[in-house]
Amino acid sequence: MDFNSEVKNKAADIEEILKKYLPKEEGYQKTVIEAMNYSVLSGGKRLRPMLMQETYRLFGGEDDIVEYYMTALEMIHTYSLVHDDLPCMDNDEYRRGRKTTHAVYGPGIATLAGDALLNYAAEVVAMAISNAKEPEKAAEAMKVLFGKSGVFGMIGGQTADVISEDKPCEDITEELLMYIHKNKTAALIEAAMMIGGILAGANDITVRTLEKIAYNVGIAFQIQDDILDVTSTFEQLGKPIGSDERNHKVTYVSLHGLAEAASEVERLSEEAITLLHTLPGENVFLEELLKSLIDRKN
Amino acid sequence: MDFNSEVKNKAADIEEILKKYLPKEEGYQKTVIEAMNYSVLSGGKRLRPMLMQETYRLFGGEDDIVEYYMTALEMIHTYSLVHDDLPCMDNDEYRRGRKTTHAVYGPGIATLAGDALLNYAAEVVAMAISNAKEPEKAAEAMKVLFGKSGVFGMIGGQTADVISEDKPCEDITEELLMYIHKNKTAALIEAAMMIGGILAGANDITVRTLEKIAYNVGIAFQIQDDILDVTSTFEQLGKPIGSDERNHKVTYVSLHGLAEAASEVERLSEEAITLLHTLPGENVFLEELLKSLIDRKN
Repeated sequence: MDFNSEVKNKAADIEEILKKYLPKEEGYQKTVIEAMNYSVLSGGKRLRPMLMQETYRLFGGEDDIVEYYMTALEMIHTYSLVHDDLPCMDNDEYRRGRKTTHAVYGPGIATLAGDALLNYAAEVVAMAISNAKEPEKAAEAMKVLFGKSGVFGMIGGQTADVISEDKPCEDITEELLMYIHKNKTAALIEAAMMIGGILAGANDITVRTLEKIAYNVGIAFQIQDDILDVTSTFEQLGKPIGSDERNHKVTYVSLHGLAEAASEVERLSEEAITLLHTLPGENVFLEELLKSLIDRKN
Repeated sequence: MDFNSEVKNKAADIEEILKKYLPKEEGYQKTVIEAMNYSVLSGGKRLRPMLMQETYRLFGGEDDIVEYYMTALEMIHTYSLVHDDLPCMDNDEYRRGRKTTHAVYGPGIATLAGDALLNYAAEVVAMAISNAKEPEKAAEAMKVLFGKSGVFGMIGGQTADVISEDKPCEDITEELLMYIHKNKTAALIEAAMMIGGILAGANDITVRTLEKIAYNVGIAFQIQDDILDVTSTFEQLGKPIGSDERNHKVTYVSLHGLAEAASEVERLSEEAITLLHTLPGENVFLEELLKSLIDRKN
């Protein structure tokens, strides 16, 4: 099977796992559950749960426990998009080629659906911990998950991003931009690979290496996103292009230009692969997946 | 010491616990942490953590572990208020006599501060589980906490509440109203007492009794809230009165009238006290606290 088909198959398998854990659309809370499901089952690439699963396999992990964390992480990623798209945030009407959650359900229900997804992530992790054969690893994975998604992780990055939008461009330093990328984008990718390692029994030093690999991948992924915002089309990307320029947004591309941005993506990706090769075990698919992030078109 | 002074002292002690766990206001994420702290340290009554602590003591609990859950629960309660006050939800400018979080920090940062508080609750619980002498109890407490705050608990109730606002009054059935009260208001009070019991080693049947007591208290609390919205003043309540009528909101009071509402509060409270007396152990303060909910003026 070629790589792209394998990615598609794995994403479809992950979608089945997500469906298994999503709540049933019933009762007086039906509307918010519909909005949760609409948000999660929106044709995402499932990059984060896929990275978690493949990292888990790299270290020989074979238990179902990883499914809980894959699901929780994708729910957290999804809620962050739902809230980010709200009228009081980025006010985006489209994502991945279809209407955003608030555009369909209204901002009130979209706010609640985001809250419900973050809360449900904690519920799913609670199940994981109760059913874990090794509760310490499960608890450690929980710490990493909510640490990376919280105020010293993803939410911190989103905050800095929101605040920087009101600042004149010349006040956005390289340091601030990298803080935003590290936390808003890389943090959940770090969580993905670290949790894959932790659950499979990787030691602390190895988990730190995974964090570094994921950091590189995350930053590369974000810079690639900014490149695509300039060079892609609505059809390829599934959302309006040129939004960064319209919003006077400082990006790696606006600071350094397209060519330097493209070579930074390549450098980060190569460093990630070099670090991956220092790890015991082999996972050809994981390596191809990391590499594919350089070349992605959407 | 009289009861009111004791309540004040205990609330002050809980405030110190909350401060211990709240994140430091530093770094690029400083603004959202300020908004989190502003939201949490807003002179709330600390009823939920107080009920948890007193229930824990009722069953002889003496460990610090309860502090993590008291903090997490108050953070969850607080985030729900912050999001509830947003322009896309209730659009309230005042709460407890001071500006709401979005009125001070804007709706974008208020959305993120709410998210950060819910996420931080999970971080605090992760610490609790890692440090627990009895991890199974800690995990069970986590399940109850996020179950009661989630889509089949508080968020479910909020959803039904939001949706019912768009319905003609005659479509709001007693059943729907009680669903909203049970989930939007009672669920976190149930979590408070159940977790106090679980952490102190109460058995399943006792935890169910605690849930029933808390349900009664929660519904009584909500009906009392609706009564005060009609009979109180801005000064007493710290927020505008008459908002339910202005918003054409169906409440227990609008369905049954003030007198029947008041007697229902009394009935529920008495049933709660009767159930409390069936439990082993004694906690005079807890009994007074539950009773005080009948007579509260704000």
